[in-house]
Amino acid sequence: MLLNGNPESRISILDRGVQYGDGLFETIAVAGGEPCLWQRHMQRLEQGCRRLKIDFPEDDNLLLEVYREINGRSQGVIKIILTRGSGGRGYAPPANQKSTRLVYYSEWPEYPAGFSQSGVRVHLCDLRLGRNPALAGLKTLNRLEQVLARGEWSDPDIAEGLLQDGEGNLIEGTMSNLFLIHNRNLSTPDLGFSGVAGVMRQVVMEQAGRLGIPLAVKMLKMRDLLSANGLFLTNSLIGIWPVREVNAKKYDPEAVSPSLVDAVMCRGFRFE
Amino acid sequence: MLLNGNPESRISILDRGVQYGDGLFETIAVAGGEPCLWQRHMQRLEQGCRRLKIDFPEDDNLLLEVYREINGRSQGVIKIILTRGSGGRGYAPPANQKSTRLVYYSEWPEYPAGFSQSGVRVHLCDLRLGRNPALAGLKTLNRLEQVLARGEWSDPDIAEGLLQDGEGNLIEGTMSNLFLIHNRNLSTPDLGFSGVAGVMRQVVMEQAGRLGIPLAVKMLKMRDLLSANGLFLTNSLIGIWPVREVNAKKYDPEAVSPSLVDAVMCRGFRFE
Repeated sequence: MLLNGNPESRISILDRGVQYGDGLFETIAVAGGEPCLWQRHMQRLEQGCRRLKIDFPEDDNLLLEVYREINGRSQGVIKIILTRGSGGRGYAPPANQKSTRLVYYSEWPEYPAGFSQSGVRVHLCDLRLGRNPALAGLKTLNRLEQVLARGEWSDPDIAEGLLQDGEGNLIEGTMSNLFLIHNRNLSTPDLGFSGVAGVMRQVVMEQAGRLGIPLAVKMLKMRDLLSANGLFLTNSLIGIWPVREVNAKKYDPEAVSPSLVDAVMCRGFRFE
Repeated sequence: MLLNGNPESRISILDRGVQYGDGLFETIAVAGGEPCLWQRHMQRLEQGCRRLKIDFPEDDNLLLEVYREINGRSQGVIKIILTRGSGGRGYAPPANQKSTRLVYYSEWPEYPAGFSQSGVRVHLCDLRLGRNPALAGLKTLNRLEQVLARGEWSDPDIAEGLLQDGEGNLIEGTMSNLFLIHNRNLSTPDLGFSGVAGVMRQVVMEQAGRLGIPLAVKMLKMRDLLSANGLFLTNSLIGIWPVREVNAKKYDPEAVSPSLVDAVMCRGFRFE
């Protein structure tokens, strides 16, 4: 693990990441020894820093640290945590900020192979996400809602939980973004008030456009989920998971366009 | 600083407090060498643990650690951070939890003496708090909303910022709770959807009851703020701060009942 470029597995208790969750993170797939979708992850991190007014480290340095942590391994996961650093008085951000960056490698998660092929079972969560445009879309270190939602089930055959906001809008999974399929049309929730704008979600949106698959970004309700003939989940590690069941309701995992899956799996797991 | 009872100033990067803000904290005034309102802080922490399903350490051990950190000093601040510890897969909480506890002392904050006597100036924040009953009332480590709100002003003469939720309900200050005064009647926001249920807020509510001052807990709107003849802020370190100005609007800091202030300052800064 690297803390500001130095081998270290611990962080100061006074760091604002520890004190307040005052920071952001990225979870990046490593394939063929390379961090996949690097530019997009850096764009999102930089955008998050701009919105939270955290100082963004030079991404060339970050990339060097990422390669040091990958250390020649072919497949795995890189996590980058960026906090506002230490200092300031209480919640007040320090006048002279120096962000703290953590970079570390972990093993590739062993999800059952069937998840990608035959689809996953999904739990509809009781917890409702709060709405806050100031934080919406960002992958911040404030993730208690996701922790509580993920704590709602322990059946290992359930791969993910779907979340609505307080007004009943479908938003995302606890660790993934959501796409609904109505005939050939795709839709994905508007993330202007809640949720994390995933990097793989962006890849799906672009590839759908390239393939001529109609796609709408909008507020989606439970009735849209019930009327869909298919749905799928995305994130940087899983790529695409078709869904075969939400609570007791069945969906056709083959409703997901194979050409879209191919395009996303091809673009989503390379360095660019 | 003590980490699980051992002198240590750093915490594992893999701790869920660092990764997700998966934990709670307490900020406790030290007066006469004793942690003030100890029982109430422990009640709130225990209640937070119950709601988040974090395992609560024995509070006798915690109290011994608090005295070790106070180390004979008369006045100061003790902060306790309690996280869900390490482990689990992603957001999923670990099957065998072992919470991490941090206890450390810091200097008493030097607020200008005039804040308590002549009242404070307050900024009405642009940021709106999200609403989430699952987290409402708890002092969690997810505090990015407060950090962003506190970043809205840098004028040292402004002591605090007032926050509304997304529906325009007045909730609290960035680091304090809010009470409005209409003639002799007090009201304080219902914290069922947002906000932190402060320990000093509870003391104010009890002392108001004891003194026969009518007090309502309810949803409050901007019109209630505008029609108030006074307001004040509370937390465990400041006790009571009357407010003399919110943006351009003036309030009478002497609208706050002196007998209530006396009762709260007397009860709020002793060990019990």
